[in-house]
Amino acid sequence: MTLVVQKFGGTSVGDSDRIRTVADHVARTVRRGDSVVVVVSAMGKATDDLIRLAHEVSAVQPPRELDMLLTAGERISMSLLCMALAELGVEAESFTGSQAGIVTDAEHTRAKILEIKPHRLLECLSRGAVPVVAGFQGVSTDSNVTTLGRGGSDTTAVALAAALGAAACEIYTDVSGVFTADPRVVATAHKIPSISFEEMLELSASGGRVLALRSVEFARNYGVPLHVRSSFTWEPGTWVVEEDPEMEQAVVSAISHDASEVKLTLTRVPDHPGVAARIFRAVADRGVNVDMIVQNTSLDGFTDISFTAPKVDLPLAREVTEAVAREVGAGTVSVDTEIGRVSLVGAGMKTHPGVTATMFETLAKLDVNIEMISTSAIRISCVIRADQLEAAVQALHEAFGL
Amino acid sequence: MTLVVQKFGGTSVGDSDRIRTVADHVARTVRRGDSVVVVVSAMGKATDDLIRLAHEVSAVQPPRELDMLLTAGERISMSLLCMALAELGVEAESFTGSQAGIVTDAEHTRAKILEIKPHRLLECLSRGAVPVVAGFQGVSTDSNVTTLGRGGSDTTAVALAAALGAAACEIYTDVSGVFTADPRVVATAHKIPSISFEEMLELSASGGRVLALRSVEFARNYGVPLHVRSSFTWEPGTWVVEEDPEMEQAVVSAISHDASEVKLTLTRVPDHPGVAARIFRAVADRGVNVDMIVQNTSLDGFTDISFTAPKVDLPLAREVTEAVAREVGAGTVSVDTEIGRVSLVGAGMKTHPGVTATMFETLAKLDVNIEMISTSAIRISCVIRADQLEAAVQALHEAFGL
Repeated sequence: MTLVVQKFGGTSVGDSDRIRTVADHVARTVRRGDSVVVVVSAMGKATDDLIRLAHEVSAVQPPRELDMLLTAGERISMSLLCMALAELGVEAESFTGSQAGIVTDAEHTRAKILEIKPHRLLECLSRGAVPVVAGFQGVSTDSNVTTLGRGGSDTTAVALAAALGAAACEIYTDVSGVFTADPRVVATAHKIPSISFEEMLELSASGGRVLALRSVEFARNYGVPLHVRSSFTWEPGTWVVEEDPEMEQAVVSAISHDASEVKLTLTRVPDHPGVAARIFRAVADRGVNVDMIVQNTSLDGFTDISFTAPKVDLPLAREVTEAVAREVGAGTVSVDTEIGRVSLVGAGMKTHPGVTATMFETLAKLDVNIEMISTSAIRISCVIRADQLEAAVQALHEAFGL
Repeated sequence: MTLVVQKFGGTSVGDSDRIRTVADHVARTVRRGDSVVVVVSAMGKATDDLIRLAHEVSAVQPPRELDMLLTAGERISMSLLCMALAELGVEAESFTGSQAGIVTDAEHTRAKILEIKPHRLLECLSRGAVPVVAGFQGVSTDSNVTTLGRGGSDTTAVALAAALGAAACEIYTDVSGVFTADPRVVATAHKIPSISFEEMLELSASGGRVLALRSVEFARNYGVPLHVRSSFTWEPGTWVVEEDPEMEQAVVSAISHDASEVKLTLTRVPDHPGVAARIFRAVADRGVNVDMIVQNTSLDGFTDISFTAPKVDLPLAREVTEAVAREVGAGTVSVDTEIGRVSLVGAGMKTHPGVTATMFETLAKLDVNIEMISTSAIRISCVIRADQLEAAVQALHEAFGL
């Protein structure tokens, strides 16, 4: 008997019919002889509705209360799924994050899992019943209800799979797997049958919206094979697994793009040790996620520093950057919202020189100017003009024969 | 400094505006210098919406999962109220039934409170913050989420008031207090400033919908003064308190009526010891709430037995009664759905003879036939035809000079 964790996202449990369809799928898995632990998100737009209600009621949302509010969402979807399973003759019990033993730190709205105490889930499994666990939520060490932030339900699923020693963690979503590029941009993009944790990490970090970065990290750290697939088609999706050293790797596995960032530039920054550290410490302390950083060659003891950050963090990023610019005696702060980033990801890149050259040549042919560059062992990212992003993705997809 | 428990029902927190109005009232109470513990129900029709969703998803609703589902309702209203209080500068923290220490038995959908462990509420109060507690819900001794059934939020409020030694428990609802009769039936009905626990118990048991019977019982047993009032007008309502033996009591305080019951009659029941016990044990074992019972004078060793029960229990009551009728060798079972009950309640009745006579005379003048009679020391109830119920209430209200 194999234990699998099946995680269903918001669109997968979006209405009564979808919940019954999910119940049917879980029931089939059980009848096949496998043990299943189910993790669910809140139904479709339920979380958005609750947030809208919170804004209607008050301009102030204490994080503890926001967590209390939002966790109502999974409570509804998980108990409804248990009812649908009961109608199919499958015994199921719902568990809140707290009941499932998901212990977190006390950072409301973005808590980190500290420990899993799954004894109630194990007891439920030992009775042959299906535990249905609320994704996204936990209980803090001081007994308050917490949420795990963006991608929290994926993290719950992977953490439970690790704690329970599950054979796999199936992530059901509204896309049928990981693609060589966004199919809305590249008509010939196709589903990748299998990809390594490292490649998936790079894809998630560079604009791929299929899996949250932290859930992939968790899966890699605990060696939990992930299977990303669609609850609309039920066809096999993409496996995210340990890299097989025996296998020859694709030079480039996928092309991702991201138009959700902005670029901030500080001009005339005094170029001596410790200045850059002060700037990025100040930005980090306010919780702004800096992505790429470029520092110009110094001229007359001054330099320009540019960095990218999420668009949603722009007001905060601008405020803190302007403050620190005054402190260190730098010049002005300028903002560019019309940037886009295109990235190549592939484990085979490590052993194949020339990928960077091909990328740059392809972009040059399109008359695309490269504004910033960042690389890892298995990824190359370029910041370009936002309005050239889609053409760049299409050309690169073809140039690397995907 | 006085501690009060303020309970707000579903209509009182029915939408964003109402929640802000409630927050304003709680803030005023705090600024007056009182300590407040707030208990909230789910918003308006939230519970009905969740039940409808459950029926859409499945024909089977395991009670444990129904409780998990419905408790999402108070979670939403209580966290929203805390946000509205935060905007007014009042520190508040929401607590689920479990977090508030409301320990119940394991009877899902109709759990009974076993114990209150209010240490988290006391800690919150000691910091000068306002605990906002989910009504209607608790946690069972085996750590599952339970609900307290009908009137559960009132029970939560009274139980907390008792456990915390509160000076009073204020029940805010959509009516402005307890009336001498239903104002929709009797135009001259007026609000009663103060009424005894015993009278309120009789009113709740005989059709008054203002307070749930069990919350009044709880308040009486623990001596918690109740103040029933409207969150729409905020004017003083009705106090429900210990009877003052020094005060002269009204002979009749109020007239209640109830058209929510049916009458079942078993004909030709063998009239020997133990038969009635078998019948009503069988009915009770299926959870049917029998109200009034009348047994005819025996004739030839046979008798007829009639009893009333809630209309909602009719299918179950009929099934079990027909089964037990066969077992004891009785005749047929007939059902009368067109009955109504009118009741006089008054603590002064104990010392004033003639109330029954006046009641019967008043009904006789209206040509109303009395089909069943039941009395307590401070109540007289008569079952009559449903279509004569309103006229009977109006005539009695006038006859007793209310």
